[in-house]
Amino acid sequence: MRNIKKLLFIVPFGLIALFNASGQTFTSYVNPFIGTGSFDEHSLSGNCYPGATIPFGMVQPGPDTRQAPSWGDDGNGYYYADSVIYGFSHTRLSGTGVSDFIDILLMPTTNKSEWVPVSTFSHDDEEAHPGYYRVKLQTYGIDAELSATTRCGIHHYTFPSGADQRLTLDLDHSSIKGRWGRTVINSQIRVISPTVIEGFRTITGWAKLRNIYFHIELSKPIVAHELMDGDFAVYDAPVINGEELHGVFDFDNNSANDLTVKLAISPVSIENARENMAAEAQSWDFDSYRSSADKEWDKYLGRIEVEGTDRDKTIFYTALYHTMVQPNTMSDVNGEYMATDYSIRKMPEGKTFYSTFSLWDTYRAAHPLYNLIVPEKNEEFAESLLLHHESYGHLPVWVLWGQENYCMIGNHSLPVLVDLAMKNIGNIDKKRILDACVESVTHTHLNFPSEVWEKYGYMPENLQSQSVSITLEESFDDWCVAQLAQNLGEKDIYERFAARSRYYEALFNPEHGFFQAKNDKGEWIEPFDPLKYGANGGNPYTEGNPWQWLWYVPHDVDRLISLLGGNKAFVKKLDDFFSITDTSGEKNVNASGFVGQYVQGNEPGHHAAYLYNYAGEPRKTQKMIHHIIEEFYNTQSTGYAGNDDCGEMSAWYIFSSMGFYPVNPASDEYAISSPVFSSVKIHLANGKTFTIEAPKKDKSEIYIKKQSIDGMPYKSNILKYETIMNGSTLQFKLSSK
Amino acid sequence: MRNIKKLLFIVPFGLIALFNASGQTFTSYVNPFIGTGSFDEHSLSGNCYPGATIPFGMVQPGPDTRQAPSWGDDGNGYYYADSVIYGFSHTRLSGTGVSDFIDILLMPTTNKSEWVPVSTFSHDDEEAHPGYYRVKLQTYGIDAELSATTRCGIHHYTFPSGADQRLTLDLDHSSIKGRWGRTVINSQIRVISPTVIEGFRTITGWAKLRNIYFHIELSKPIVAHELMDGDFAVYDAPVINGEELHGVFDFDNNSANDLTVKLAISPVSIENARENMAAEAQSWDFDSYRSSADKEWDKYLGRIEVEGTDRDKTIFYTALYHTMVQPNTMSDVNGEYMATDYSIRKMPEGKTFYSTFSLWDTYRAAHPLYNLIVPEKNEEFAESLLLHHESYGHLPVWVLWGQENYCMIGNHSLPVLVDLAMKNIGNIDKKRILDACVESVTHTHLNFPSEVWEKYGYMPENLQSQSVSITLEESFDDWCVAQLAQNLGEKDIYERFAARSRYYEALFNPEHGFFQAKNDKGEWIEPFDPLKYGANGGNPYTEGNPWQWLWYVPHDVDRLISLLGGNKAFVKKLDDFFSITDTSGEKNVNASGFVGQYVQGNEPGHHAAYLYNYAGEPRKTQKMIHHIIEEFYNTQSTGYAGNDDCGEMSAWYIFSSMGFYPVNPASDEYAISSPVFSSVKIHLANGKTFTIEAPKKDKSEIYIKKQSIDGMPYKSNILKYETIMNGSTLQFKLSSK
Repeated sequence: MRNIKKLLFIVPFGLIALFNASGQTFTSYVNPFIGTGSFDEHSLSGNCYPGATIPFGMVQPGPDTRQAPSWGDDGNGYYYADSVIYGFSHTRLSGTGVSDFIDILLMPTTNKSEWVPVSTFSHDDEEAHPGYYRVKLQTYGIDAELSATTRCGIHHYTFPSGADQRLTLDLDHSSIKGRWGRTVINSQIRVISPTVIEGFRTITGWAKLRNIYFHIELSKPIVAHELMDGDFAVYDAPVINGEELHGVFDFDNNSANDLTVKLAISPVSIENARENMAAEAQSWDFDSYRSSADKEWDKYLGRIEVEGTDRDKTIFYTALYHTMVQPNTMSDVNGEYMATDYSIRKMPEGKTFYSTFSLWDTYRAAHPLYNLIVPEKNEEFAESLLLHHESYGHLPVWVLWGQENYCMIGNHSLPVLVDLAMKNIGNIDKKRILDACVESVTHTHLNFPSEVWEKYGYMPENLQSQSVSITLEESFDDWCVAQLAQNLGEKDIYERFAARSRYYEALFNPEHGFFQAKNDKGEWIEPFDPLKYGANGGNPYTEGNPWQWLWYVPHDVDRLISLLGGNKAFVKKLDDFFSITDTSGEKNVNASGFVGQYVQGNEPGHHAAYLYNYAGEPRKTQKMIHHIIEEFYNTQSTGYAGNDDCGEMSAWYIFSSMGFYPVNPASDEYAISSPVFSSVKIHLANGKTFTIEAPKKDKSEIYIKKQSIDGMPYKSNILKYETIMNGSTLQFKLSSK
Repeated sequence: MRNIKKLLFIVPFGLIALFNASGQTFTSYVNPFIGTGSFDEHSLSGNCYPGATIPFGMVQPGPDTRQAPSWGDDGNGYYYADSVIYGFSHTRLSGTGVSDFIDILLMPTTNKSEWVPVSTFSHDDEEAHPGYYRVKLQTYGIDAELSATTRCGIHHYTFPSGADQRLTLDLDHSSIKGRWGRTVINSQIRVISPTVIEGFRTITGWAKLRNIYFHIELSKPIVAHELMDGDFAVYDAPVINGEELHGVFDFDNNSANDLTVKLAISPVSIENARENMAAEAQSWDFDSYRSSADKEWDKYLGRIEVEGTDRDKTIFYTALYHTMVQPNTMSDVNGEYMATDYSIRKMPEGKTFYSTFSLWDTYRAAHPLYNLIVPEKNEEFAESLLLHHESYGHLPVWVLWGQENYCMIGNHSLPVLVDLAMKNIGNIDKKRILDACVESVTHTHLNFPSEVWEKYGYMPENLQSQSVSITLEESFDDWCVAQLAQNLGEKDIYERFAARSRYYEALFNPEHGFFQAKNDKGEWIEPFDPLKYGANGGNPYTEGNPWQWLWYVPHDVDRLISLLGGNKAFVKKLDDFFSITDTSGEKNVNASGFVGQYVQGNEPGHHAAYLYNYAGEPRKTQKMIHHIIEEFYNTQSTGYAGNDDCGEMSAWYIFSSMGFYPVNPASDEYAISSPVFSSVKIHLANGKTFTIEAPKKDKSEIYIKKQSIDGMPYKSNILKYETIMNGSTLQFKLSSK
C-alpha cells in the first residue's frame, strides 16, 4: 500500500480574505447570465440560469421565461433570448439538456383577472449576482428581487404605488407534461393563517418521483384568496388538493408597497420545510439574505485567486460559480432525506445528503476540481453516492433528486470515488469504496450488461448499443477499480480489473486507425464511417462520431499512441482531428463548438487537445487550449459552446485557464498547458497554497519557454498532485512564439 | 348535554367460547367464495375474494384469475367464472367496482421457460376458509396453500416429486395500466441472500401513489435466479430496478418437495417490512399460521351468535366476515404509516392507522355494525379519519391506501364520527370531531361546493352535477353535525346545520312527488323522468334514478311522509316503488337485484323497505325484508346481487337478518323487522349480551305477532341503542301470516 498521509481539512476557509488583490470581491466578477443563451445557431444553450442560489444549495429561486420547457435550450426554465417571465420557481438544474424541476412558481401581479400572469421584461432592467436576482416586471411595474439560503427562497416585491397587490402560486407549472411521463400526481395548497401558506406537490418526470413540500411566510397578511384546480375554483376554503393547482392571494395596497415572501422546501414533509425555515430564514430583512449569500459565495470562490484581465476573471469566477451551484443539498436541516427507494432516511448529525450528479460529465473535471478546492464537499458527495448504492444495489449513473435515471453511459461514480480514495481525502473506508465499485460493475444494470462485458472482452453492438463508447469508458472505469484494488492489496481484484481496463483494444481497427464496433461473433460491423454520428442508443457512438471517440484512453495514452503508430502518426491524427471539417449526415445535436472534428460543446473529447503533450508536441497543446478558450468562452449569455452540463464545461475552463488538466481524472497527474492568468493561487484544504506564476505582457504569450517548481527547473509536462498539495510554486516563462 | 355514560371496553373477547351451541366454530360457517361471482347476467360480481386474510389486516394473499383487471366483475383480481390462475398477489380490495392493488404476485411453477406462468384450476380442487386458501395448480401439479398474519402473507407450495421447483415474482402485475393513469413508477427486486428477497414497487393508479416495500423469506435456498425488466434480462445480478420487473428463482428438487414463502409488506420502508415479519411471522410452521388466523377470526365472528339453518348461518357468518376484511391496517408494527400527503408519520404506541374506507357505502350499515360489535376498532377508524383531515384539510370522502380519491359523493365521514361521538364510544374528544366536521363541510372541496350549498339552499345542477343525490345526502350529513353541536351546546353551529339539514325540501316537487333537480335560478330542470338513471356525473342522480333517490331522508322520515301526502299516499308510493318494473333508457350498471324499482345491488335505497314501518305498515317491512333476503343472498359465488362494496352489502344482511336496521345510521334508533334466526346474541364490549329470541317452526314465520323486551310487552317498531347496550332480551312471537 502506498503510504500517503491523510489529507486533513485544517484551513479555516471563512477567514480567507474576502477581497482579492484588486480590492474587489470574487463575487463581483460573477455574471450569472453567462451561458443562459446559445453560443450560435448550431449550439444548444449553456442552459445556465441567472436565479439566486448559494453554494451546493437545495433551492434555486429564479425567473422562468418558459411556461413548460421541453429539452435543449430551456432545460432550467430560463432562456436569454426570451422576453417574458411567468414567475419565479424554486428548483432548477444548471446546464442539463433534459428539463425537469422548476417547482412552486410564485408571481406577483397587479392584475386581478389573471390566474397565470405573465410579464414582459428587459435585460436592461434585470441584474444577477451570486445569491441575488432582480428584474422589473414591466407589465405590472413590479420590481422583483430574489435571494436564497440553502433551503429557502427569499422574494422581495415592490408594487407600484396604489396598484393592486397580488401574489399567485402555481403548482401546475413544470417542464412539459408527458415527456418522461411527466404528470403531477397530487398537490396541495393550504392557507394556514393570513401570513402562512403550506402544501406540497408530488410529480413524476425525469426524476421518477419527487415530493416537494413547502412552507411560505409572508411579510403582511393575505386579505383575500382564491384557489383553483384546473377549472374548479374555490373561493371559501383554506385548502385545495388536486393536480392542476393555482392560488391567488390579495394584499392590502394601503399599507406598504412591498411584500417579502420566504419559501422553504423539503423533500420529506411540511414539518421539515417549517423547520428548514426556522433554522435558516427567520429574518425579514431581504438585504441580509443577499449579503449572507454574497459572503458565502465569496468564501468559496476565493479558494482560487487569479490575476488577469477583468474579462478573463469574469469568465473564470462565473465558471467557478457554475461548478458549485450543484451538486445540491437534498437533506433537511434535521438530516432527513428521501432515499433512492423513496423511503425516508436520516444523515448523521452535521452531515448532508447531496443529489444532482451528472456523472458522465462531471467525473472528467468537476470532481477532480472539487478534490482540490472543496475536498470536504467531495467527501460528502462520495458518501451520498455510496448511500445510493446501499438502497439501489449499484452505484449511480446519473442522480436526479436522489434517484437514478440511467442517463448516459458508463459507471462514473467509480472514478469519483477512486480518485477520492487514492488521494486519501476524508475518512470514508477505502474497502467500502472498493466493494461498492466492484459490486456495481460485476453485475448487470441498465446499459451495462456485465456478463457480456467479461464474456466477450468488449461490448458487442448487437448485444448492447453505444458499444464503442461504453467499451472505451468502462475500460477506464475498470482501470480505476484496479488502482484501488492494488492500493488495498486486493491482488485478484486488481488482476481482473487490470485485464478489463485493456478491453478497449479489442475494438481498435488497425485498418483505419479508429475504434469500431464488433458484433458478438467478433466481426467488425460495416460500413464504417468515421464522420457518422450516434446519439443515445442505436449506434455504437454516444452523442459523437468515431473521430471524437478515438481519444478516449485516458488511463493509457502511451498505448493509444502506440496503436496509432507512434508519436508522429499520433500527432498527424490529432492534427487531422483538429482540422478536418467534413461531415457525413446529420451531426448530433450536442455537437457544437467545432475545431475540425473536435467538439468543445460536449464532453467525450474534452481532453483531446492535451494529448499532444504525450507525443512530444506540448506547444500544440498550448496553442490549441488557448484557441478553444478564446473561441468558445466569453462573458455573454453566449459564453458556453453547448450545455454547461452541471458545471463540467465550466470545470474544463477552470483547469485549462489555470494551465493544467486531469486527462486521467482519477490519477495524481495533470497535463500541463499554459495559464491564461499571470497568477493563480489555490488555497488548499491542508492550509497550504499552490501558486502558479506566469507573468505575461499580453495574451499572445501562450507558449512555455521555461518552467520551474519552487525555483528548480521542471522539464515534465505532467504536474503531480503531490506538488500541488505541498503548496509549491509553479513558475512559467512564456513567449508568444 | 345528554348524560350518557362512557362506553368502556371491558369484555376480554379472547375468552369468549370459540364454539357455538352446535359445537362448530364460527369460522366453519364462512364460505369466502360467496360473492366472488355475479348474481345473474345483469349484475356486477360481488367482487369478494377467496384469499387469506385476518380481521382488518394489511395483506390479502390470494389467487389472481385476471392478469390485468379493469372494472366491474374483477375488481379484486379473482372472478369465480374464470378457469386460470396467474399467481397470488398480496393486496386487494373486497367488493369495490374499481380495481386497484393486487401487488407483488408470486407464482410457483415447474416450467423453466415461462416468465409469466399461468395455470388452470378447478373449483373442485380449491378451498377457502378464513385465513386459509388452497388450490391445485393443474398445469404444474402444484398444491398451493396460503395463510396470513396482519402484515405477512404465508405461502406453502408442494411440488410434484421430481419436478423442477421454481418461484416467479411479478412486480409488473397490476390492474390494467392506463386506467386512472395507472403506471408503475419504479420498482426493485433484490436478492439479499439465498433465502431472502426484498424490494418495492411504486405505482400510481386509483390510489394516486403507493410505495409497497416487501421482505421475503424462503424455507430453502435459491440455487439460481434470473431477473428481468421488460425484455431486458439480467442473469448475473442480485438486483434489478425498473418498471416491468419479473424475477424467477430456482430451487433444488432433490431436497423436500415443498417450499414455504413468507412475505411481509410495508407502506414505509424495506426495514419496516423486515420488522413486520420479525414481529408476526418467525415460524416456519405453515399450519400454525392457518390455526392462528382461524382463531383470530373465530374470536371476532363470535361476537354475534345466531341460531338457524346451516344455510342461513353460512350466509350470516360469511357476511360478517366480509364486513371485517376491511378497513385495512396501514401502519407497520412500529406504528409508522404513509399519511395522505405522502409524508411518513407514526401512531402512538399500541395504536393502528387504518385505510380502505368506502364511506359512501359503509356509513350506512357497516360502521353502525362496528359500533355494536367492534367499537374499539371503530374508534381507531375514526382516529384515522381525523388524522386524514389533519394532513389533507378535510375529512375523507373515500380512502384508498391512506389517500383521498373523491370517489362518490357526500361527506360521510361525518355520520361515522358523529355516531361514535353521540354513542360515547372511546375517548376521542367530541369537540375535535365537531371541529373537523364543520371545517370539512363549510369549505369547498371536489364535488362539494360549500358556498353554493349555503347560497342556494340546495345544489343547482348547473353548478354541481349529481345535485339531487348530493342535496339529499348532504342534508343528512349536516343533520349529523347539528346533533353533535346540540350535544356540545354549540348553539350557533346547531342552528346553522339544522337549517342545512332541511335543504333537501327545496328539491321536492309536489307536482309529481319526486326530488327533482333545479338550476341556480330555482327553475326545475326539465324534462323529468322518474325512471331515468344517472351515473357518476352529468346527471342529477348518482348511480340511480329518481325512484331510488326518493327515499333518502333518513333523518326525517316523518317529514318525507308528509311531503308525499301522509301515511297512505306514502305507503302507496312505496308499493309502487317495489312493483313498477318499467324502464326508460339504460339502467346504471350498478343497479341490479330489482324488486320493482328497488335495487338491492347498490346502496342509495337500502333503507327503503324499512320505511313502511314509519307509515304504520310494519308487516310490509317484514315481508319485503325477508323477500330481499331470500331473493338476493345465497351461499354460492352468486350470493350478492351486486358489489359487496367493502362489506356494506354484507352489513345490510347482518342487521336485516337479526331483525333491525339503522335507517338513520347516526341515531340511537333502529327500525325493527323480524329476524331470520331463532336466536341472536350480540356480545357487547361492555360485557353484556343483547339477545333476540324468535322461535320459529319454519322460515315462513316472518310476521311479528307480539314482541317484548325483558318480558315486558313492547309496541314500538323502533329498537333503541340503549336497550341493546343494557343487555336486554328482545323476544318475538312470529307467525307466517
